[in-house]
Amino acid sequence: MKNISFDKVNINSGFWADKQKLVREVSMMNVCKRFEETGRFEGAKLNWKEGQPNKPHVFYDSDIAKWIESAAYILAKHDAPELREYASNVIDTIAASQDEDGYYNQYFQTCENDRRFTNRDAHELYCLGHLIEAAVAWYNAVGEDKLLNVVEEYVDYVIKCFITDKTAKFASPGHEEIELALVKLYDLTKEEKYLDLALHFTNIRGTENDTDRVFYNQSHLPVRKQRTAEGHSVRAVYLYSAMVDLALRTDDEELKEACIDLYKNITRKRMYITGAIGSSASGEMFSYDYNLPNIHAYAESCANLGLALFCRRLNLLEESSDYADMIERIIYNGFLSSISLDGKSFFYENPLEIDPALLQRRGEHYPITQRLEVFGCSCCPPNITRFISTIGDFIYNVGDNRVYINQFISNSAEFDFMGEKANISIESGFPYDGKVKVVWNGPEAELMIRLPFWCDKYTADENGYIKKTVRNGDILCFDFEMKTVLYEADPRVQENAGRFALTRGPLIFCLEGVDNGSYLRDVSVKADGNMIMGYDKDLDLPIMIVDGYRRKHSIREKLYQPVSDEYVNLKLKFIPYFAFANRGETEMLIWTQLKRG
Amino acid sequence: MKNISFDKVNINSGFWADKQKLVREVSMMNVCKRFEETGRFEGAKLNWKEGQPNKPHVFYDSDIAKWIESAAYILAKHDAPELREYASNVIDTIAASQDEDGYYNQYFQTCENDRRFTNRDAHELYCLGHLIEAAVAWYNAVGEDKLLNVVEEYVDYVIKCFITDKTAKFASPGHEEIELALVKLYDLTKEEKYLDLALHFTNIRGTENDTDRVFYNQSHLPVRKQRTAEGHSVRAVYLYSAMVDLALRTDDEELKEACIDLYKNITRKRMYITGAIGSSASGEMFSYDYNLPNIHAYAESCANLGLALFCRRLNLLEESSDYADMIERIIYNGFLSSISLDGKSFFYENPLEIDPALLQRRGEHYPITQRLEVFGCSCCPPNITRFISTIGDFIYNVGDNRVYINQFISNSAEFDFMGEKANISIESGFPYDGKVKVVWNGPEAELMIRLPFWCDKYTADENGYIKKTVRNGDILCFDFEMKTVLYEADPRVQENAGRFALTRGPLIFCLEGVDNGSYLRDVSVKADGNMIMGYDKDLDLPIMIVDGYRRKHSIREKLYQPVSDEYVNLKLKFIPYFAFANRGETEMLIWTQLKRG
Repeated sequence: MKNISFDKVNINSGFWADKQKLVREVSMMNVCKRFEETGRFEGAKLNWKEGQPNKPHVFYDSDIAKWIESAAYILAKHDAPELREYASNVIDTIAASQDEDGYYNQYFQTCENDRRFTNRDAHELYCLGHLIEAAVAWYNAVGEDKLLNVVEEYVDYVIKCFITDKTAKFASPGHEEIELALVKLYDLTKEEKYLDLALHFTNIRGTENDTDRVFYNQSHLPVRKQRTAEGHSVRAVYLYSAMVDLALRTDDEELKEACIDLYKNITRKRMYITGAIGSSASGEMFSYDYNLPNIHAYAESCANLGLALFCRRLNLLEESSDYADMIERIIYNGFLSSISLDGKSFFYENPLEIDPALLQRRGEHYPITQRLEVFGCSCCPPNITRFISTIGDFIYNVGDNRVYINQFISNSAEFDFMGEKANISIESGFPYDGKVKVVWNGPEAELMIRLPFWCDKYTADENGYIKKTVRNGDILCFDFEMKTVLYEADPRVQENAGRFALTRGPLIFCLEGVDNGSYLRDVSVKADGNMIMGYDKDLDLPIMIVDGYRRKHSIREKLYQPVSDEYVNLKLKFIPYFAFANRGETEMLIWTQLKRG
Repeated sequence: MKNISFDKVNINSGFWADKQKLVREVSMMNVCKRFEETGRFEGAKLNWKEGQPNKPHVFYDSDIAKWIESAAYILAKHDAPELREYASNVIDTIAASQDEDGYYNQYFQTCENDRRFTNRDAHELYCLGHLIEAAVAWYNAVGEDKLLNVVEEYVDYVIKCFITDKTAKFASPGHEEIELALVKLYDLTKEEKYLDLALHFTNIRGTENDTDRVFYNQSHLPVRKQRTAEGHSVRAVYLYSAMVDLALRTDDEELKEACIDLYKNITRKRMYITGAIGSSASGEMFSYDYNLPNIHAYAESCANLGLALFCRRLNLLEESSDYADMIERIIYNGFLSSISLDGKSFFYENPLEIDPALLQRRGEHYPITQRLEVFGCSCCPPNITRFISTIGDFIYNVGDNRVYINQFISNSAEFDFMGEKANISIESGFPYDGKVKVVWNGPEAELMIRLPFWCDKYTADENGYIKKTVRNGDILCFDFEMKTVLYEADPRVQENAGRFALTRGPLIFCLEGVDNGSYLRDVSVKADGNMIMGYDKDLDLPIMIVDGYRRKHSIREKLYQPVSDEYVNLKLKFIPYFAFANRGETEMLIWTQLKRG
């Protein structure tokens, strides 16, 4: 099974075309300016001196690398001279700053050049990983190899330090990333040394004597023995993604099994209904099974999109619509919440509930209730821009005589198929409308169309897919009817007991205080009431108008009082979760009560 | 307004007579043995040497002092030769160990004699406070002054160190307690220096330059400026109790106002429905307003009974049944939960919800789900024994021509009233039955009978009390009808939104897994269903049988799934909260759902 890469996919209209345009025209230069202001690009010149502002940070190179990578993905499909020029200049700077021995890191070369590869947690290999991804993307999009040469020289230096001379003071990176990047470099160059290095870093993990924070770094066990998702959630899903990459390229059954079990542990026990992961703010970590607090959800944007990267790879390992269902859950909910509707600001954490009054009482403002344009640790914004710019990666897989449609994103794609040119196009109203039209031009093929898990109108033929044989010119139409359905959580998810999430098709909905008043936790949906789709002019989005009740509050003097039977009928206004926090600080809630009778 | 002391009150039958008997015959020697095993009494001999087990601890003297004090209260009313002999021996040991200069502390004299009064947090004055309370109790009960002489000499030494010579390295104790103890010593001896020292320690608090943990120690503001209950909750309520004591004896209006406002802050914003306080395990502290987590409730036994001590004093300051209502809430719920039905073991924390499966998943066992016989920090057990032994303190107040009945505890009391002997007796079925019979023998008086806040059968005449003029031989009968009522919390108590607590009269009820299966959070009470009082043979207690529903669980593979309409009818068995965790480790829940229709 092979993936059809985003660069073969044209997304020219519809929901994701709009998002890509927003990223291209607004987010990219906005992130760029914030990175400029905080010295991230300037730091690459290695000019910083003690006492000056904007001291380079160990992970600044990863931020600028992801920005270059995002620019490359945009340039692969669009003319964007401003992005091209800016990125080219940054690449020139990096190339000029690379040490003669191949090393490059703006922080260490400027501040601690004698401490290279001495601190496992100092992000050097993580930064290199992102530089590799940027270099591969830039080469593929623009055809220039300057950054590619930089990273190839640097990787040779890494091989020297970690394998040949063993001068490095640790064995595997504290923050995974380089493993999956090296696979990309291998795929491009076909040089075995890159695959070998990726395997080396992956295999040695969990076998070192390092006892410091082993769970945090996924070093508690050799990777093939790992069965539960542990530690820092971004590191984890980057590692697991690399593990699938390596399993696919080496046909390693043990590694495949570990990956599938890790996926099951995450998605059956450690994932929010939005597809977000990493519930614990302490260490940005996975927690224990079913510990999924709503207000204190950490659910970092990078972790959420990282889970989608992991799922996309798993879907190449196994024909199962479950992986694509999960991607759909993530991209329309727990991932998409991370960017504001105007494209300018971002969430690092993605809470599932917000109560500003509670934060005020507590006197601390965590989690944040409003998106920001930049963070001290600003990994998320350029990760979000590169993810949206490559959303086309998630649509199709191809295997033998089959083409898999995994996401119903409007697009047309051209690709080689069974020795011929093929062209497929999708028109869809997702995520708001389930009507899908597929046009096939190419040799006779089996189209495998994912039957979304929330749709009961069709029956799947094989592993969650509808199978249709198509010939040149065939048109298929589906209506994946989107019903409004309340979802409940496993009873072991303590906080959600007696509470329900309103969903419609792929979207999770939420209530906001600005529409529905305060004390949202007291609101109930009427079990047999009306649920009507509406439209909100301010948000410019479809919404749901739902019959509900709420307890009639008059906050009385007593902390506890006999239950009141005074309820008021309400029209509740639910908005798509991804659109929350776009109208000022206000309460937000996904998990509401349900009132029967 | 004066309190009628427990020693004038005979509790010979009924609920509290049984509890006192249990403490007298089981708890006291059981606590004593655990204290022996852990070297707490032996430490008072100052024989401990480095390398030996059971190193003395800074607060061990407070543990043994509270045990002696408990023994004294029992000896005031009962013949208990074993307790008397044991306590006498311990007093002899302490007297023999007292230094020539008056100082006594088993830890410092043994381990750090040159570090006396250098560490504000080392509990020396706290221990002395408890020794003073024990000495006063022992003198009053037994008539022996040996311990009284010890503490009087010690207090003189304290005055020297803190006032005259100022050799102490801090100004006010880190853990309050000595302030209220000094008032007791003053009340007994009428020596002004004790009241002065109590005032000194109270007035200097919050004016020191100590910036370390000022909230923790209630040193963030001068006490008269404090309006919110902050910091370590036991320290707080001990301080507030002393503040009322001092306000009463010095007629200090500013101090009175602070006390009343602190009471309002606690009981309107920072108290569990059980009357428990100090919700945060981190620092055993009060938290912010309405932050009252159930599973992670800290709610230390000492804090809960300390709130009752504060309320009893406030009721001498102000004629308001609210204080006595609050005491009732505490003594039958958040306090009484701290001792097992067999009298042998105790809770330090008193959770409002238990989920053993969650603790197992989390891999740590906090809060504890079962009572223990002794703790490393074992302040609670002897505090519980002394509190139950003086429960008679809470029944009556006397003022001018009035006698206030605050608690409906079966008893008879003899006391001087308007220059004559008076005798009053109460027979009641509390906390299970609201019928109360009061017999008055004495001069004509106004009986002020508290109308419980949960009873709507009578109307109060004055500040929550029913006023009845009685003459010699009069008998009054009341039926404070105990209805089963669901209570709701202020909507700002996040966790309880959409949840209700079942109460009947003064009792809060809870569900246990052993009776009702697992996933108790999914259980709903049927709004218009039957609620019938029953009796449980094993517990030997009245219980409530209530019509309910529960979601029909089959734990399916998916973490989230469409809401199921499969509900099963159930007879829910609610037991009094105070009786939870007496039948092995099992789920427990107070705040249930309510299903209407």
